[in-house]
Amino acid sequence: MIYLDNAATTLRKPRQVVEAVVDAMETMGNSGRGVHAESLSASRVIYDARCRLAQFFGCDAPERVVFTCNATEALNMVIAGLFAPEDHVIATDCDHNSVLRPLYRRGNADFLPADGKGVLAYEELPRLLRPHTKAIVCTHASNLTGNLTDVALLSDFARKHGLLLVLDASQTAGTMPVDMEKLGVDVLCFTGHKGLMGPQGTGGLCLAPGVEIRPFKVGGTGVKTYDKEQPREYPTRLEAGTLNGHGIAGLRAAVQFLEETGLDTIANHERDLTRQFYEAVSRIPGVTVYGDFSTWNRAAIVSLNVRDYDSAQVAEVLAERHDIAVRAGGHCAPRMHRALGTWEQGAVRFSFGWFNTMADVDAAVRALQEVAE
Amino acid sequence: MIYLDNAATTLRKPRQVVEAVVDAMETMGNSGRGVHAESLSASRVIYDARCRLAQFFGCDAPERVVFTCNATEALNMVIAGLFAPEDHVIATDCDHNSVLRPLYRRGNADFLPADGKGVLAYEELPRLLRPHTKAIVCTHASNLTGNLTDVALLSDFARKHGLLLVLDASQTAGTMPVDMEKLGVDVLCFTGHKGLMGPQGTGGLCLAPGVEIRPFKVGGTGVKTYDKEQPREYPTRLEAGTLNGHGIAGLRAAVQFLEETGLDTIANHERDLTRQFYEAVSRIPGVTVYGDFSTWNRAAIVSLNVRDYDSAQVAEVLAERHDIAVRAGGHCAPRMHRALGTWEQGAVRFSFGWFNTMADVDAAVRALQEVAE
Repeated sequence: MIYLDNAATTLRKPRQVVEAVVDAMETMGNSGRGVHAESLSASRVIYDARCRLAQFFGCDAPERVVFTCNATEALNMVIAGLFAPEDHVIATDCDHNSVLRPLYRRGNADFLPADGKGVLAYEELPRLLRPHTKAIVCTHASNLTGNLTDVALLSDFARKHGLLLVLDASQTAGTMPVDMEKLGVDVLCFTGHKGLMGPQGTGGLCLAPGVEIRPFKVGGTGVKTYDKEQPREYPTRLEAGTLNGHGIAGLRAAVQFLEETGLDTIANHERDLTRQFYEAVSRIPGVTVYGDFSTWNRAAIVSLNVRDYDSAQVAEVLAERHDIAVRAGGHCAPRMHRALGTWEQGAVRFSFGWFNTMADVDAAVRALQEVAE
Repeated sequence: MIYLDNAATTLRKPRQVVEAVVDAMETMGNSGRGVHAESLSASRVIYDARCRLAQFFGCDAPERVVFTCNATEALNMVIAGLFAPEDHVIATDCDHNSVLRPLYRRGNADFLPADGKGVLAYEELPRLLRPHTKAIVCTHASNLTGNLTDVALLSDFARKHGLLLVLDASQTAGTMPVDMEKLGVDVLCFTGHKGLMGPQGTGGLCLAPGVEIRPFKVGGTGVKTYDKEQPREYPTRLEAGTLNGHGIAGLRAAVQFLEETGLDTIANHERDLTRQFYEAVSRIPGVTVYGDFSTWNRAAIVSLNVRDYDSAQVAEVLAERHDIAVRAGGHCAPRMHRALGTWEQGAVRFSFGWFNTMADVDAAVRALQEVAE
């Protein structure tokens, strides 16, 4: 089987990630819940994971790295806990339902439109600005087109107008450098099981100094037991109940793997695969590729359709006849489909990862040629 | 090392649990996010875990088994999403901060008091009843004393007065039968990493027919992508973002292990250990044991203090000199400490699990004798 659905989850994990989870499942107590060696070692592993992630994402303080069970939870926490009721938020057509649905539920949000190539109309930002606009919440890369957001531009705009910038790095963390200080990001939300190549059930958020989020879940913390309220200190303020220590141990090993391998090496490899694939498939008659390929500074995603075939059917043929795993349908990106004009058809997404090879790309191209014929 | 902190987390997991997690980390795609084999097999594993848990907990429909990252999240979901603003809730002095803090935050709750042995004053229930009382939320067993709650009594009272019964089974799931239908429970909240012996980062809730909970987190679901709202159907309604498929695969194997081993066998073993320990330590001069030991229908927990020694110091001596892991302090159970009169001192908790032996008990008794001398 050729797995080209890395934007949904990276199927293969580095060997040391699996080993770290196994080791944790055999030796790890409950972090922050005792003075014995097993509890203390759990706390050490988790703290070390915070330190590594803080450095990895350019977050100035490890205690401001908060663990969640996925990026969706991180985004829900931020959207529920960062704003006052009157605050207005700007998001974009590129965003995933993990941003859109919490904002629809909250209300008081506007969306920067995208064009038919999925490129955001940044020039319309001033038009969306209101007196109570408090933040821009935006994905770093569209999970459908792979287009990168111009974070430098958003960050400049945010600074100029006193807004916070919340970045959803679900599609970029682990596949390219994401440094919140350099990018001017105030809150970074990430998932562990995609580009970071960690276990499912991991993710989190990183908070810049001075950014305060109200507790989303409250409960046991192992500290300040007698207080009626959740402790005010990070990360405990946003972490109630037992953490996924086993998963976090794996995530820590994953970040170590990424550091040893080098993000540039990973980014170059994925770019080569994507480019090779794009250049071959965009020449196949009947294939329509979506997104902006005028730059290779993008996520390793190529979404397309074959003639007017239903995207789900194409994915099924690829899976059943060619043993190639891709994703079809809506991709939790309704506004992007509307912008691309693919609301009915959906799109077939090929997404590449560190463990893919040029042979995988060639096989996928051949399969698509067959489908198109 | 002798691990007697199973009420915090079961350190040792059955071999097949670790194997299931490893297998999932090597083969599992993203559940519900594709038509290829890896995604479908993820969905199958997760659905099978729902079926097994539904049967295990007497929940009539697998789709009403909802996965969360721990019991705290399940309890937060219920307390935030089950009630109207005017609804009043009854909880108890036995409850954990995972129940107390969400209720303190919400307001409009009263607490059934416990006596000096941690036994609830059930006769005071009618006094707590108000016209708008909607539910009783209560732990199945105190995580501090191990006393079991009289769920039959609460359930009768709830039925009589048209209340819902929400049970926190964190301390009992996996160590004794917990059947929500037989017990008359409307919502059951559980954690995966304690008695169930599954991975950290797993847990959930089971809903009886007709009980409706508003979505807590919203976002990507892989279905009904174009709807602005979270789908109304369970479990998707309460599950946004990628599930911890790796952990759930382990939890599924854990439930299989429990079924094969037999809950009665496990309960008997843990009861024997607890009884042996209790009978020995309650004879040591200077040792005060907390809780109601007039019945052995209880959780495998014995909490105590030695003279007026600080509980944290006792735990430290046990860890450092005797290599015995227990937990001291507040145990996220402030109301219980107030009832027991141990607010200042905390308590030293010994909690037993399936992998403990009589030799572990004997070693712990000897160590305590030394500490008391």
